[in-house]
Amino acid sequence: MTVQIDRDRNYSTLSLVSPIPPPEDIRLDRAIRLGVMASGSGTNFEALAQAIDNRELNAQIPVLIYNNPEAKVKEKAKKWNVPAILLDHRIYKRREDLDRVIIEVFQQNQVEWIVMAGWMRIITSVLLDAFPNRVINIHPSLLPSFKGVRAIEQALESKVKITGCTVHLASLEVDSGPIIMQAAVPILPNDTPETLHARIQIQEHKIFPIAIALAAKQFGFQ
Amino acid sequence: MTVQIDRDRNYSTLSLVSPIPPPEDIRLDRAIRLGVMASGSGTNFEALAQAIDNRELNAQIPVLIYNNPEAKVKEKAKKWNVPAILLDHRIYKRREDLDRVIIEVFQQNQVEWIVMAGWMRIITSVLLDAFPNRVINIHPSLLPSFKGVRAIEQALESKVKITGCTVHLASLEVDSGPIIMQAAVPILPNDTPETLHARIQIQEHKIFPIAIALAAKQFGFQ
Repeated sequence: MTVQIDRDRNYSTLSLVSPIPPPEDIRLDRAIRLGVMASGSGTNFEALAQAIDNRELNAQIPVLIYNNPEAKVKEKAKKWNVPAILLDHRIYKRREDLDRVIIEVFQQNQVEWIVMAGWMRIITSVLLDAFPNRVINIHPSLLPSFKGVRAIEQALESKVKITGCTVHLASLEVDSGPIIMQAAVPILPNDTPETLHARIQIQEHKIFPIAIALAAKQFGFQ
Repeated sequence: MTVQIDRDRNYSTLSLVSPIPPPEDIRLDRAIRLGVMASGSGTNFEALAQAIDNRELNAQIPVLIYNNPEAKVKEKAKKWNVPAILLDHRIYKRREDLDRVIIEVFQQNQVEWIVMAGWMRIITSVLLDAFPNRVINIHPSLLPSFKGVRAIEQALESKVKITGCTVHLASLEVDSGPIIMQAAVPILPNDTPETLHARIQIQEHKIFPIAIALAAKQFGFQ
């Protein structure tokens, strides 16, 4: 078990990362199949694709689902040769209807784990029941502080001095399932939402692949 | 502005401490007079007394108030030659009555800042109005997570992976006033309330004197 500290001169990567088991304890015996869901720029998706490419995470991403036609994650998926499917949430009357199509897409692609990499829609029990303990979420705060939208703005407004990010299993209550990993970063006096977001993202990209392997070991069938 | 990282081999002092201004920016021009309130073992009181003795904090403690006849802080006060006054909360009918006596003791001793160093009683607006923005509290969690009693047990039960401590100005709502400093520590897999408390206490003793100087500079009349 190691606990990681990173620092550099301008503090952009300064962090405290929660304990990580030795690499041999979280090495996956075979490539797990991840279905990724994203709504935005896709930096977390790309961090996973990169970690897989670097053989740091034994996984494959057979399919990515995005809900916003303008989402830049679409281009990142193309770059990494991951098939990207648009499921525009606006054409579904109820959240459950969208979730049923997501399940259909993921099951057809033999997805084992769902990874919400900046998915900005609320999921329902329909999706969670189809993938019990198999939906992983990443959130830009040290949960249980600052759940929900605008987590980074919430942290700045509340004037805390330390915030971070959390990878956890999704549950029906938003941003509340069992925590897998966390990383803490300082809030600096002149931080804006943008500078703080950038600092947190560096940690997200670092812990997300490790946390997925950890979850596959802890909660999974490996 | 520096951000501190400490680590040692067994992780007992591993932490991420929120930004600290350069020493010259928080050096106090004269010794501020601190009235300390404590209910327990007095380790935070002793950390302050030690920091004053080491000339790390330009302050004096003319008087300590404790509310529990058995509190070990009484012995620590004796060791550091600080007059300790027992105000047993059980003899006061209302919280406000106790607060009025506390004010009387502190005003007679020309106290400028009140420092709650593990004071386990709820204070009222009577005390806050007499020392506006002059009451400092320390709490063993990364606020706003885990307010109130049993903060360390709350963190363990919620299975977060990172917790810490917070120094803040007291307000009427418990554990909610403006934050001055925070320090984050990892929760390790085999932690008990005792081992986690010990890890947090090391950080409390480190940030408390710095945060008091910072508060005196930021909110004070220095």
